[in-house]
Amino acid sequence: MAERVTTLAAEHFPALELHFHPQCFLSAGHFAGSDAERAAAFVMIANDATFDALWFGRGGYGSGRIAEAALGQLADAARAKTYLGYSDAGVLLAGLYGKGYQGIVHGPMPADINRSGGEAAVVRALSYLATGATETLEPSVTSSGKVAAFNLMTFSQLIGTPFQPDLTDHVLMLEEVSEYMYRIDRSLFHVTSNKAVQRVAGIRLGRCSAIPDNDPDFGQTEVEVVQHWCGKAGIPYLGRADIGHDAANKIVPFGGLRLA
Amino acid sequence: MAERVTTLAAEHFPALELHFHPQCFLSAGHFAGSDAERAAAFVMIANDATFDALWFGRGGYGSGRIAEAALGQLADAARAKTYLGYSDAGVLLAGLYGKGYQGIVHGPMPADINRSGGEAAVVRALSYLATGATETLEPSVTSSGKVAAFNLMTFSQLIGTPFQPDLTDHVLMLEEVSEYMYRIDRSLFHVTSNKAVQRVAGIRLGRCSAIPDNDPDFGQTEVEVVQHWCGKAGIPYLGRADIGHDAANKIVPFGGLRLA
Repeated sequence: MAERVTTLAAEHFPALELHFHPQCFLSAGHFAGSDAERAAAFVMIANDATFDALWFGRGGYGSGRIAEAALGQLADAARAKTYLGYSDAGVLLAGLYGKGYQGIVHGPMPADINRSGGEAAVVRALSYLATGATETLEPSVTSSGKVAAFNLMTFSQLIGTPFQPDLTDHVLMLEEVSEYMYRIDRSLFHVTSNKAVQRVAGIRLGRCSAIPDNDPDFGQTEVEVVQHWCGKAGIPYLGRADIGHDAANKIVPFGGLRLA
Repeated sequence: MAERVTTLAAEHFPALELHFHPQCFLSAGHFAGSDAERAAAFVMIANDATFDALWFGRGGYGSGRIAEAALGQLADAARAKTYLGYSDAGVLLAGLYGKGYQGIVHGPMPADINRSGGEAAVVRALSYLATGATETLEPSVTSSGKVAAFNLMTFSQLIGTPFQPDLTDHVLMLEEVSEYMYRIDRSLFHVTSNKAVQRVAGIRLGRCSAIPDNDPDFGQTEVEVVQHWCGKAGIPYLGRADIGHDAANKIVPFGGLRLA
């Protein structure tokens, strides 16, 4: 995987230098290395001013296990860097954004190359890292103020923790994958019932893909569900977002575009 | 199901009168009736002083959809009543306990009769309703102070909502069913990272059953996982609790035993 991504980068953006930290290739039960090994790798790259960006290798699960330790060890150099990823990496993106970091970005990761059509996702991420090209962005970003994007379940399980960021006046984009519709409904109950979340400018729904069959049929689509909960909570529902666990997943720079 | 439970009740506790509200037999997509129908049935029984107890029919998912409406319509008569259920019903149990209600109880529901050995669970619940018999209780309850019990995921998705109850100085019992070990881990990250939850007297782990296989193996048992998160959060881990999604599920009266 690392080889294919490196080849792709050399082909499209020869000026970019990619380094895969050896931790990416470790294995410890469910995780790519122990908590200590993963936290140390994150902190090493984050604190090294010679790297412009920290690109999360993949999602899955495990960021929560290192969030407190990793975020507690960051030096000043960590602040001037782009952090790119999504899904489970949202825990660390949230924590970094909550600390006031400016370069927090939702977007494809190296492991997306294994998806059908995944090369396009990886090239999109590389293009954003190399040039910040506008065409890599989720389309509503250029006309919105502050924005942020999360996997719905990941965001739900940040609520009420020290890692929940203040998203007042942000457009919050939420996507989901492989969750039953009743669970999407329950997560939206959770998220929209939170007083701090109710201060967002609105919610956009990304793609909800690979939803297992509900038995009996749930009776409502994901759009009806998000409209229900937004309506109850007094949160504007702003339509769909072009993000999701797929090759078309677009870039969302947290905080929105900072125009000079 | 209602017939079998009624027969069982007549056999074991002839003095008990059971009434199944017609809403129990409705169907609307995923739910036993629309949100309005389910909320109305709950409120009608809760506010009717001629009923000593409101026994939730089953779990699944849907309490969150009616919680705000149902809890907002309760009259004084609703306060002097026992509310018995678990799993998804935990949303309403939490909301009622948060309002200072005294009769909030975790325990088996009528639908448990469909489990293997489920008659014993139903008889246990009926016995508690009829006599409050000590042998129906989760064993640690008699030697603990305040207690409360929840399904882990249900409790996780109450965190940071108006339905999250203050469990300061309570022994918090948590059980889970049909969740991957990585999700049990993530839910415990969530729950134990909450500052209010960190004020509990300790956590007891109920049974975690029907855990789907993790690929690769997660590498830690549920006890190791709860010990990890309790240790990080400074919450005493107090051992196992005799609760779970099974026929052996014991009774936990929220707040503990109130001795005269």
